[in-house]
Amino acid sequence: MKELQFLDVINKTLSDTSLLGDDCAYLKDFDQYVTQDTLCEGVHFDLKYTDFESLAQKAVEVNISDLAANLAEPKYISISLSVPKSFDNNFIKQFYKGVEKCCEKYKIKVCGGDITGSKSGLVISICAVGKSIYCAPKVSRSYAKENQYVCVTKNYGSSAYALHCLKNRYKCSDKIIESHLVPKADMEVSKALGKLKCNQIAVMDSSDGLCDALYKISKASDKSIDIKFEDIPYDREIENYGKNYKDLIFWGGEDYGLVFCLDKNDFEQLKNNNPQIDLYKIGIVKPKNKNYFVKIDDMIIDDKIFEQKSFNHFEGDN
Amino acid sequence: MKELQFLDVINKTLSDTSLLGDDCAYLKDFDQYVTQDTLCEGVHFDLKYTDFESLAQKAVEVNISDLAANLAEPKYISISLSVPKSFDNNFIKQFYKGVEKCCEKYKIKVCGGDITGSKSGLVISICAVGKSIYCAPKVSRSYAKENQYVCVTKNYGSSAYALHCLKNRYKCSDKIIESHLVPKADMEVSKALGKLKCNQIAVMDSSDGLCDALYKISKASDKSIDIKFEDIPYDREIENYGKNYKDLIFWGGEDYGLVFCLDKNDFEQLKNNNPQIDLYKIGIVKPKNKNYFVKIDDMIIDDKIFEQKSFNHFEGDN
Repeated sequence: MKELQFLDVINKTLSDTSLLGDDCAYLKDFDQYVTQDTLCEGVHFDLKYTDFESLAQKAVEVNISDLAANLAEPKYISISLSVPKSFDNNFIKQFYKGVEKCCEKYKIKVCGGDITGSKSGLVISICAVGKSIYCAPKVSRSYAKENQYVCVTKNYGSSAYALHCLKNRYKCSDKIIESHLVPKADMEVSKALGKLKCNQIAVMDSSDGLCDALYKISKASDKSIDIKFEDIPYDREIENYGKNYKDLIFWGGEDYGLVFCLDKNDFEQLKNNNPQIDLYKIGIVKPKNKNYFVKIDDMIIDDKIFEQKSFNHFEGDN
Repeated sequence: MKELQFLDVINKTLSDTSLLGDDCAYLKDFDQYVTQDTLCEGVHFDLKYTDFESLAQKAVEVNISDLAANLAEPKYISISLSVPKSFDNNFIKQFYKGVEKCCEKYKIKVCGGDITGSKSGLVISICAVGKSIYCAPKVSRSYAKENQYVCVTKNYGSSAYALHCLKNRYKCSDKIIESHLVPKADMEVSKALGKLKCNQIAVMDSSDGLCDALYKISKASDKSIDIKFEDIPYDREIENYGKNYKDLIFWGGEDYGLVFCLDKNDFEQLKNNNPQIDLYKIGIVKPKNKNYFVKIDDMIIDDKIFEQKSFNHFEGDN
């Protein structure tokens, strides 16, 4: 958990850390959200499995997913590319085709960035700027309240299963592969949540895994969360992974769905007003149980298990 | 000139490029400037020569320099680090000490970013957000007008000479070394320019070299610029480089000064109101001469010479 250690050191070194800790910062004086995510060749992607157009879309979508989790609409993206010498104009052309697709889809503009050489692999760093959805509820992972429904809107585990198949040259369906190569931010769900009448809402995106989001929400909210495995949506195809397929669902990451907690009334309202959204209630927020943060059927997740299992950007081998 | 080719492809691939082309984008709906610059190990810095604290300061200053060139004050920075496995907490501690120094100096806040692993070298991508200095003149490299004075406020060539000395283990003074390892954005000059009464002003920062800035201003303004070499400020120590020391001054880059064009009256006003600024008039804006964009004494710079000489991020070996 080098990332957590590093964040701890940052918190101790900077005198003002008021804007740190979430995946998105709210800049009050500009009424604006800012987020930045970087993808490195060899760590976050392998050019054997993807193409530049898909990669660009993914790089944009993962940033937009952070905005979506704050109920903010994307407006601008800045793109910095560090490019190995061997790459030619075709790379830039394909990459920006992917960027253009996202610009059209989300009605956003590219507002700059830079292009530099790289002595090693391709590095893509994108900074996205967004605006709060009109009158949206305030968002924090600490806003989960007792008896709220824990909700998701997407299949879990598909992205990790796709990577497993790509690496091992196993066959799997196109939609599984696409969930990994060109994931989609949950912007539609974000907008629907933004229209709810509640004042506060606990939301996270599940980029680092479903259980990562559940753990962080329950911990920040000082609650425990009880989940029923049978209620978690997943594509049955991933059971081909073998007996540990649940690990993909719980810890696989890169599914880029939103995980959120709603009162029963808000849940009903969201469901009724948005029949096009696949809304799943997967569990309930409970009073803090000292033995665990998250329980899925009989399996508990406490600090120790979280540390062992959670996605590690420094040691991941994808 | 791979960078220019790449930019050309980007311009042809994106449908809306209205915010591209400058080192900083102005986001009208937020009344805000955004810029992003990335430093890659092996391309932009060598850990043999610098320490993490200095490197952090440089990474922040180069972004602030872009804001300074747009007469914008920095407000927030987002920092993305891609870190090799071997780096430990000490790296983060030293790096954020440097960041904290900049935060104090400029009264800015860190508003996020991310930390990921890197399979190759250290990559630092910073996005800086700034606000226009109150009632500042509008800025564009295309605003140079005939008979204006071409001005600078800093020594040129020091940074490139420092790198030369570091690489070859030649001795040079501490202030030369510091100009390379911890360059300072010209924020004071930026603020002074921001208070001028003129409506428009041609300004650029000289991160890619003095002649790069002069060439780009004259080309964008459809003018020619005549410079007197004897008026360009530089530290006499860099003459130790040998007979080609002028190349360091013209093309060395990374000096992070501002290059700007002013009417005589504005020049006098700037000088009188800011005795603490070392203001140098190094040349005059002339009507477009079809033979050159920039002339320094008898040496001319046209498109061809620019292409040969200008700093190339893709082929630089520093």
